Amino acid sequence: MLFHVRMDVSPPHDLDPQRRAELVRAEKDRALELQKMGVWLHLWQVVGQYGSISVFDVPTHDELHAFLSSLPLWEFTRVEVTPLATHPSDVAAQP
Amino acid sequence: MLFHVRMDVSPPHDLDPQRRAELVRAEKDRALELQKMGVWLHLWQVVGQYGSISVFDVPTHDELHAFLSSLPLWEFTRVEVTPLATHPSDVAAQP
Amino acid sequence: MLFHVRMDVSPPHDLDPQRRAELVRAEKDRALELQKMGVWLHLWQVVGQYGSISVFDVPTHDELHAFLSSLPLWEFTRVEVTPLATHPSDVAAQP
Amino acid sequence: MLFHVRMDVSPPHDLDPQRRAELVRAEKDRALELQKMGVWLHLWQVVGQYGSISVFDVPTHDELHAFLSSLPLWEFTRVEVTPLATHPSDVAAQP
Amino acid sequence: MLFHVRMDVSPPHDLDPQRRAELVRAEKDRALELQKMGVWLHLWQVVGQYGSISVFDVPTHDELHAFLSSLPLWEFTRVEVTPLATHPSDVAAQP
Amino acid sequence: MLFHVRMDVSPPHDLDPQRRAELVRAEKDRALELQKMGVWLHLWQVVGQYGSISVFDVPTHDELHAFLSSLPLWEFTRVEVTPLATHPSDVAAQP
Amino acid sequence: MLFHVRMDVSPPHDLDPQRRAELVRAEKDRALELQKMGVWLHLWQVVGQYGSISVFDVPTHDELHAFLSSLPLWEFTRVEVTPLATHPSDVAAQP
Amino acid sequence: MLFHVRMDVSPPHDLDPQRRAELVRAEKDRALELQKMGVWLHLWQVVGQYGSISVFDVPTHDELHAFLSSLPLWEFTRVEVTPLATHPSDVAAQP
Amino acid sequence: MLFHVRMDVSPPHDLDPQRRAELVRAEKDRALELQKMGVWLHLWQVVGQYGSISVFDVPTHDELHAFLSSLPLWEFTRVEVTPLATHPSDVAAQP
Amino acid sequence: MLFHVRMDVSPPHDLDPQRRAELVRAEKDRALELQKMGVWLHLWQVVGQYGSISVFDVPTHDELHAFLSSLPLWEFTRVEVTPLATHPSDVAAQP
Repeated sequence: MLFHVRMDVSPPHDLDPQRRAELVRAEKDRALELQKMGVWLHLWQVVGQYGSISVFDVPTHDELHAFLSSLPLWEFTRVEVTPLATHPSDVAAQP
Repeated sequence: MLFHVRMDVSPPHDLDPQRRAELVRAEKDRALELQKMGVWLHLWQVVGQYGSISVFDVPTHDELHAFLSSLPLWEFTRVEVTPLATHPSDVAAQP
Repeated sequence: MLFHVRMDVSPPHDLDPQRRAELVRAEKDRALELQKMGVWLHLWQVVGQYGSISVFDVPTHDELHAFLSSLPLWEFTRVEVTPLATHPSDVAAQP
Repeated sequence: MLFHVRMDVSPPHDLDPQRRAELVRAEKDRALELQKMGVWLHLWQVVGQYGSISVFDVPTHDELHAFLSSLPLWEFTRVEVTPLATHPSDVAAQP
Repeated sequence: MLFHVRMDVSPPHDLDPQRRAELVRAEKDRALELQKMGVWLHLWQVVGQYGSISVFDVPTHDELHAFLSSLPLWEFTRVEVTPLATHPSDVAAQP
Repeated sequence: MLFHVRMDVSPPHDLDPQRRAELVRAEKDRALELQKMGVWLHLWQVVGQYGSISVFDVPTHDELHAFLSSLPLWEFTRVEVTPLATHPSDVAAQP
Repeated sequence: MLFHVRMDVSPPHDLDPQRRAELVRAEKDRALELQKMGVWLHLWQVVGQYGSISVFDVPTHDELHAFLSSLPLWEFTRVEVTPLATHPSDVAAQP
Repeated sequence: MLFHVRMDVSPPHDLDPQRRAELVRAEKDRALELQKMGVWLHLWQVVGQYGSISVFDVPTHDELHAFLSSLPLWEFTRVEVTPLATHPSDVAAQP
Repeated sequence: MLFHVRMDVSPPHDLDPQRRAELVRAEKDRALELQKMGVWLHLWQVVGQYGSISVFDVPTHDELHAFLSSLPLWEFTRVEVTPLATHPSDVAAQP
Repeated sequence: MLFHVRMDVSPPHDLDPQRRAELVRAEKDRALELQKMGVWLHLWQVVGQYGSISVFDVPTHDELHAFLSSLPLWEFTRVEVTPLATHPSDVAAQP
């Protein structure tokens, strides 16, 4: 099942720089892992912002919440989830 | 170049029903056409709303505006365009 | 899977009164039907408003969208869907 | 009497980690207690966020305020309360 | 139990003037009646607007919704209800 | 002259606890004093929030500002003032 | 006593043009009259908008509401009133 | 003096189509005229919307308001004006 | 040329109290100076808030920006500037 | 391709003053460099604010994101990007 996910990251400016670098590296590792698992279908950069737009494909809400809250920067991220359905004009959904 | 496009459609309730049906049919035809051209990459339904989330792949802003404003229901659609870039954690962008 | 659904209804004031009465009656019939099917788990009135807060239990986004957009007053309803997961402090989810 | 309660928690990032862990544990204990008392009817996780949606059943406003402000994380929680009434299409309210 | 109620009235400009006058008169009659019943405790005009701020004293949410939705102009009124509790610094609540 | 006053208090979490307790106590003393003076007519708790809704009766804007800014927690309080007039449907204002 | 008043006018586009012209003329007459009475101290045009920013000097809220609601275009005007006090840095208020 | 101007046009859908076409044509003529006069420095299309972003160079506020309110579609246009100054990092403003 | 200026001041609560007192004093001195120069025409207190509404009369945007950003508390002030023009109903602008 | 860019800068007040001065100087250097490269077409100061409005001319979204996120103050800047197209009434675009 598909979910549109908007993430806006704002680490506090007085976060220890080494801790911050570790979190950023761990976030990237986790993102790559979830993409390889086929859970995180699309991941785009919002131009000019420390933010992203993603599409996740996850069978249940509990799993989606587990994936999102497992992100190392989650504590500093505003997350907005929008459930997606098949669009009647989607070319792949035509009979 | 990729663009995230949010569309919310609200045809006036006193639109002639036949005119409305024609516009909806034409909108679908145009959407299928743009998808077949490779311009309209993704098209999802926002659950519960008369609205969609899309990703377009278009080389210039002039062409994107021409495509969007050519949609038969454009007059009744609120459109929000967000430019997308390659995300540093996108698995397809790793060296 | 659970979804929180906020609905705000605003039929246009110049809608034919008989048509309006029919839509309201049909909306109620459909709501009762979906509740009996076990799809529409909770339905509450927002005090003072022509609006409701509901919880739906539906296996897929496509089905949820089909249910919501099948409501006779859907054309005049602003719908906001929020996916719900199990809360770690939910008494029913304790080991 | 039923109340819809939206809670969004944002503990300051520089809160002492041990203090934070204690507050989170105490919050869970209090939530379980209020659920067992029959006061906190429903408790759901908002997917992707450190937030919840609940329904409380409390006879008076003073008691509801006492319950909510007794939550250990209350100081760091944005709370929005919406009073709920019986919906005319609620299947349980039909004659 | 006390409720703070904000009401903003906006009758459509093309409402039949005689119908409008009747609704305004009936709204006033109903407001006076509810005040005499002791249900509508306070009623103030918001300066410069077609709007009011009120405090209701009603034992249940179902009754409050019944009172508010019985107002003749309700269809054209945006209503916002906020539950009120005893304030710890209220002079009348001191021991 | 009547004024509707919404106050939302948010003391910084790293305020010295003793200083905070003193401010809260002083705020209560000042609130009781202004109520006894007949200046602060009504004071209600907003359920679930560190916030209040009040009605003040003060002859001039300068005095109202002096009263509000004299509150010990004023520095940490968002204040919204709305001037109130006699409502034409107020039962006490009927001829 | 001084009040800051923001007015945004939006007459419906299908208002009879002659009726509209009459209302605009009457609004101007009333504005001039209130200025001559010393009630309407300042009246400025918001550049690019059908809107104004004003300062009124009126002894009571009831009178201010009466003046504002007597404006011929009031029905089509969004009005926002902000009470003003003497500023401690106002050069005219220095001892 | 420079002004940033955001314009969002929304002609009512039931405007007579011939009247609408005339207004659109007249709006274009006026825009070209003001550009040739050197008053309207930049005019860009907001992609996907019936809206524009402009920069005007006009000596006084009265003249700017006169230019903007002379636009044939002004009645159907939301206009937001932001005054611009020389930026300290503007390459043209370096000594 | 006239400009409407809304200022909301929020010095951080952990600012050194002596530094804060100095800034407040310097802000007042600068405000008095600009009023005496005829640049700062009106300065009013927003009742209940640490905020003001002003009207400036300045020939250019560069000068207005220089004046506003020279205010000692500017770093802690949200500033909103609205250009004002002569209103057609201003009594002083009648022929 | 043209992009409208709104930037609002808010460095934390407890940033080391020397570090802040360095960042401001480096930001200016980078801005001048990008203007000389022909990438940053226009740069205006928003009057009264620590903010700017710019137009960039960049061939791809990846390059625009790289430029914007290379700004030394980017971490403390809210950035909003709007894609611009040729306006049909732009005098330079007439046949």
